[in-house]
Amino acid sequence: MSPTAQIRIGILCCADIARKLSRAIHLCPTATLHGVASRTLSKAESFATANSLPPTTVLYGSYDALLDDPDIDAVYIPLPTSLHIPWAITAARKKKHVLLEKPCAVNVTELDQIISACEESGVQLMDGTMWVHHPRSRAMADFFADSLRFGQLKSIQTSFSFFADDDFLQNDIRVKPDLDGLGALGDAGWYCIRACLLAMNYELPKFVTALRNPVKNDAGVILSCGASLSWENGVVATFNCSFLANLTMDISAVGTNGTLHVTDFIIPYEEKSASFSTLTKGSFDEMTLAWATKPSEHIVNTDLPQEALMVKEFLTLVDGIKNHGLNPEKKWPTITRKTQLIIDAVVASINRGFEAVEVY
Amino acid sequence: MSPTAQIRIGILCCADIARKLSRAIHLCPTATLHGVASRTLSKAESFATANSLPPTTVLYGSYDALLDDPDIDAVYIPLPTSLHIPWAITAARKKKHVLLEKPCAVNVTELDQIISACEESGVQLMDGTMWVHHPRSRAMADFFADSLRFGQLKSIQTSFSFFADDDFLQNDIRVKPDLDGLGALGDAGWYCIRACLLAMNYELPKFVTALRNPVKNDAGVILSCGASLSWENGVVATFNCSFLANLTMDISAVGTNGTLHVTDFIIPYEEKSASFSTLTKGSFDEMTLAWATKPSEHIVNTDLPQEALMVKEFLTLVDGIKNHGLNPEKKWPTITRKTQLIIDAVVASINRGFEAVEVY
Repeated sequence: MSPTAQIRIGILCCADIARKLSRAIHLCPTATLHGVASRTLSKAESFATANSLPPTTVLYGSYDALLDDPDIDAVYIPLPTSLHIPWAITAARKKKHVLLEKPCAVNVTELDQIISACEESGVQLMDGTMWVHHPRSRAMADFFADSLRFGQLKSIQTSFSFFADDDFLQNDIRVKPDLDGLGALGDAGWYCIRACLLAMNYELPKFVTALRNPVKNDAGVILSCGASLSWENGVVATFNCSFLANLTMDISAVGTNGTLHVTDFIIPYEEKSASFSTLTKGSFDEMTLAWATKPSEHIVNTDLPQEALMVKEFLTLVDGIKNHGLNPEKKWPTITRKTQLIIDAVVASINRGFEAVEVY
Repeated sequence: MSPTAQIRIGILCCADIARKLSRAIHLCPTATLHGVASRTLSKAESFATANSLPPTTVLYGSYDALLDDPDIDAVYIPLPTSLHIPWAITAARKKKHVLLEKPCAVNVTELDQIISACEESGVQLMDGTMWVHHPRSRAMADFFADSLRFGQLKSIQTSFSFFADDDFLQNDIRVKPDLDGLGALGDAGWYCIRACLLAMNYELPKFVTALRNPVKNDAGVILSCGASLSWENGVVATFNCSFLANLTMDISAVGTNGTLHVTDFIIPYEEKSASFSTLTKGSFDEMTLAWATKPSEHIVNTDLPQEALMVKEFLTLVDGIKNHGLNPEKKWPTITRKTQLIIDAVVASINRGFEAVEVY
């Protein structure tokens, strides 16, 4: 079969983010949005109308109906985190490949059940972290891996915050303990942790220590927190994530030879062009009155937005399994699991009064 | 007397940084570099030649000789930190106003002796933190204080590192336990801590917790470390300082309404023009495909470099005391002391296995 065989995707639940993904699926040349399911048919119909889905899109009044459709190869699941366990596992058992919104699980024990279900069914599991699929992120990873331009990573500081309004803080699923119990840590911290892992070539830290002053809502859901991660090779990372501060998405990474700055790493300022700045072997002029060189800006253009590139990457793997006899790519669930392990360690450290928690 | 009365300064020791300061004194319209002292006359002569000091500059073969000169109003002391105690105190007792290089003391107990000596003699004490005197830093402080543009500070990440060569790591006074026992923390961390204090309008944190993975040399001097600071109002700060990583000097501060980024806060990329970027009430477009607004760059020009502005500020205070009957300005030693208190807490936290240390 052609390497660009069309893969038919279903979307399981009409969350806000599903709008962005349905657009991404349309933009992805190898994807067909086969159908959309909600808990009622009328909700699925509303979603189809609001997003101008073509009339050929199949609409389902239950998640089971979509998962029972043999024409569907893969599903995108943006359900609340606590519903990932039943539905990602059901999808896997019904041989659907799973693109799972983050945070993938409430904790690593639950994630492992999802991973096992996918392994047993031979389906691909990938989490919905879009930004790592932007070519800028690959360019940043190349910079981190460059022994001349960057050298050895020494420290990294990341943050992701946005200022949630009262309606969000009262009603969003991300502040509900029974839906997304990890709150800002699972939603925003997930990205910061992933950025630290990217810079460390996905090596797990040895210790995770929560920063003081986390903020929780009355139901105990984290609205703001931070942590430091430390690796055995001496690297130290810190991150802050919050629903209570102005929109910010920073990576500042410092190596022996180079420094990288980016201030829009999760969603680029512009859809088709993104940049990061680097400086290698920074130095001062002779009297330390000014810098000898200034950072340089690296602009990375892309025809497809990062969420379409994520879908494309996922479907390439699905195509390989479905049409070319390949096995699921373990890299993605492995990275997901490492991210989740660190999330769990932050929660444990907060619960233990900011003690260092060993990660393994 | 005229408010621009000339103040005669002496420099106590010919450290590298004294070159920059002797230039700054020449650039400062209210300053006269009266003389330079070293432990031997020939060293002072070499310094005068190397820096093209005018032949009227008095050269002294001992620090005492300079301090005994009644024509000297004020001294700049860039001696190694462990020598601040004897010489800053002697200078104060001899009624010389003291501009003291940072770190000001090995610990706050020693600093308090210097502060007391200055208070008893009625002389001004100011530390040599140059960057806070740049008009950009005032513009940043204005932004932090702006309830509309920035709102309430929530988190701040700062760092200062430079990659020291083997000669530095073997021979520089900043790696010698008997000279500058605080190493990178006193030298580079000092600035990061000061930036956190600036953003907090100089309110002390409640707790200081060192990050894991500090690096010390064989003599126990810190070459690299970091810490988190937490305030009672919920703010959390983290910083990294290092002699072992590429030249980096960052502030990323996030408030409820605004975000500030600067990547050259200690020494601007250019001597006469510096910038920082801000974004207020950041948001996405309707589908969260891109940002609704991008950060804006604020450029601050200055005729005099920040070190000359520091000298000018210091000498304005000296002029007020000497010629207008004013008292020493307590603001500066108070800020110095707060910086030193946090330095001490980082050391204590490292020594106690990264426990949180209360600051008061």
